Amino acid sequence: MAANSEAATTSNGDARPIGVFDSGIGGLTVVSALRRLLPDESIYYIGDTARVPYGGKSPTTVQRYSLEIASLLLREDAKTIVVACNTASSVALEALQAHLPVTVIGVIAPGAEAAIAVTRNGHIGVIGTRATIKSGSYERALRALTPDVRVSATACPLLVPLIEEGWLASDTTDDVLMHYLQPLLDAGIDTLVLGCTHYPLLRPAIGRLLGDRVRLVDAAENCAASMRALLGREKLNAAAGEGGRLRVALTDPPDSFLQIANDALQLDVGEVELRTVG
Amino acid sequence: MAANSEAATTSNGDARPIGVFDSGIGGLTVVSALRRLLPDESIYYIGDTARVPYGGKSPTTVQRYSLEIASLLLREDAKTIVVACNTASSVALEALQAHLPVTVIGVIAPGAEAAIAVTRNGHIGVIGTRATIKSGSYERALRALTPDVRVSATACPLLVPLIEEGWLASDTTDDVLMHYLQPLLDAGIDTLVLGCTHYPLLRPAIGRLLGDRVRLVDAAENCAASMRALLGREKLNAAAGEGGRLRVALTDPPDSFLQIANDALQLDVGEVELRTVG
Repeated sequence: MAANSEAATTSNGDARPIGVFDSGIGGLTVVSALRRLLPDESIYYIGDTARVPYGGKSPTTVQRYSLEIASLLLREDAKTIVVACNTASSVALEALQAHLPVTVIGVIAPGAEAAIAVTRNGHIGVIGTRATIKSGSYERALRALTPDVRVSATACPLLVPLIEEGWLASDTTDDVLMHYLQPLLDAGIDTLVLGCTHYPLLRPAIGRLLGDRVRLVDAAENCAASMRALLGREKLNAAAGEGGRLRVALTDPPDSFLQIANDALQLDVGEVELRTVG
Repeated sequence: MAANSEAATTSNGDARPIGVFDSGIGGLTVVSALRRLLPDESIYYIGDTARVPYGGKSPTTVQRYSLEIASLLLREDAKTIVVACNTASSVALEALQAHLPVTVIGVIAPGAEAAIAVTRNGHIGVIGTRATIKSGSYERALRALTPDVRVSATACPLLVPLIEEGWLASDTTDDVLMHYLQPLLDAGIDTLVLGCTHYPLLRPAIGRLLGDRVRLVDAAENCAASMRALLGREKLNAAAGEGGRLRVALTDPPDSFLQIANDALQLDVGEVELRTVG
């Protein structure tokens, strides 16, 4: 998607934050891209760590959790909301768009656009949580862009636990990755969508295992570009030059994974607030 | 702990169910032992699959969830409650005992008793979730029984995801197990407490890896014996010969792991009910 060049230049800007949420900390990969592209925007991030993970739970439960977290973001005066979680984007985006008074964007369409932009042979692999893959959301988004695209998708439920344990470079993680990825390679993909906001933390390992045979894409950069276009279109940009603020809240006190995410993303999340849900 | 031989023989018994809960399905290993030892007792089991896992979450959150699930069991008229979850037993048992009008037992003391009964060199290993190990619950329970016992404990956060994926016999699981267990072996343990209700499903793999150097114990049998004693003491036994009923409720619809548990435990859970929390 082309960036919208009229964004971020009004003098009396809209200082309200962009609301961002994920089941946990993985969505900070999207926050990192938003910070780089939209440094004047404030961001309020909520990670639902009290109920993480969403990826193995039912659509009904994920929809209920997503609506509840989004309502906390609205109480923080969010002017738009980013669902920085592939599972929630896959099963709850329509419910959020139907119920919320602000525009909501997810990560599936941006991820699909990134994949279509780089595939050469038209055969795209998708990895994600069980709920994301079962929903078929990426197939639909990819086919909406290119009807004859070939898609090979596989659920990788062990990757999030390995990432949360910080096993980002280990033989065990490599073994698990190849268990999931070999069938996609055999099928002939030339592009792989990292369809879970945790997975970019495994980009070095996946890149090393797949070499230059397969291009890796994730939604973060395109999601930030979509948000820039949206802010311009809805005239919601913050004033230029102010420097936006990042606030991070979790529903359960943070553990070691927050440090892993900080180190890998070079993102200063500062003091973490605690919000109670459920 | 000695079984109480006066249990289960009254003619006008108490038909109310024993309430049992866990963060997920792992607690069915305890239900299996209860069914074998107390076949006349009805059991109402709730697995909080909407918020599973508890093992990486904070004590405050686990206490809140435990009180909420226990209150659902009381609404089912539970006459006693078993916390069939090591994490909740470690951090929420006192809160439950303080707030509930029925007797509550956990799995830590029964597991510690089983370990003390079999150790020869007085050096016991404990594996569990991050929250269980961090709480120090097993060290306290073991030292209460044998003050000079030596305890080596380690958190094994990747085991539950591997078990829930059904990787019960795989080279990857063996690698992860040895990563966690080698330091305990090197330290000289002769007994290992499987301090998470999921872990008995890995008993064959752990037994194969450790050979006869280390005896494996879990809380299930002793927990059932404690419940038999408790029912006798409080005169709560069901009438003999009636045959108790097992009902299973989950807070999120079941997925494939329920089948894995059924197969491994030979437990017919029948139709699963759905309860909403959070």
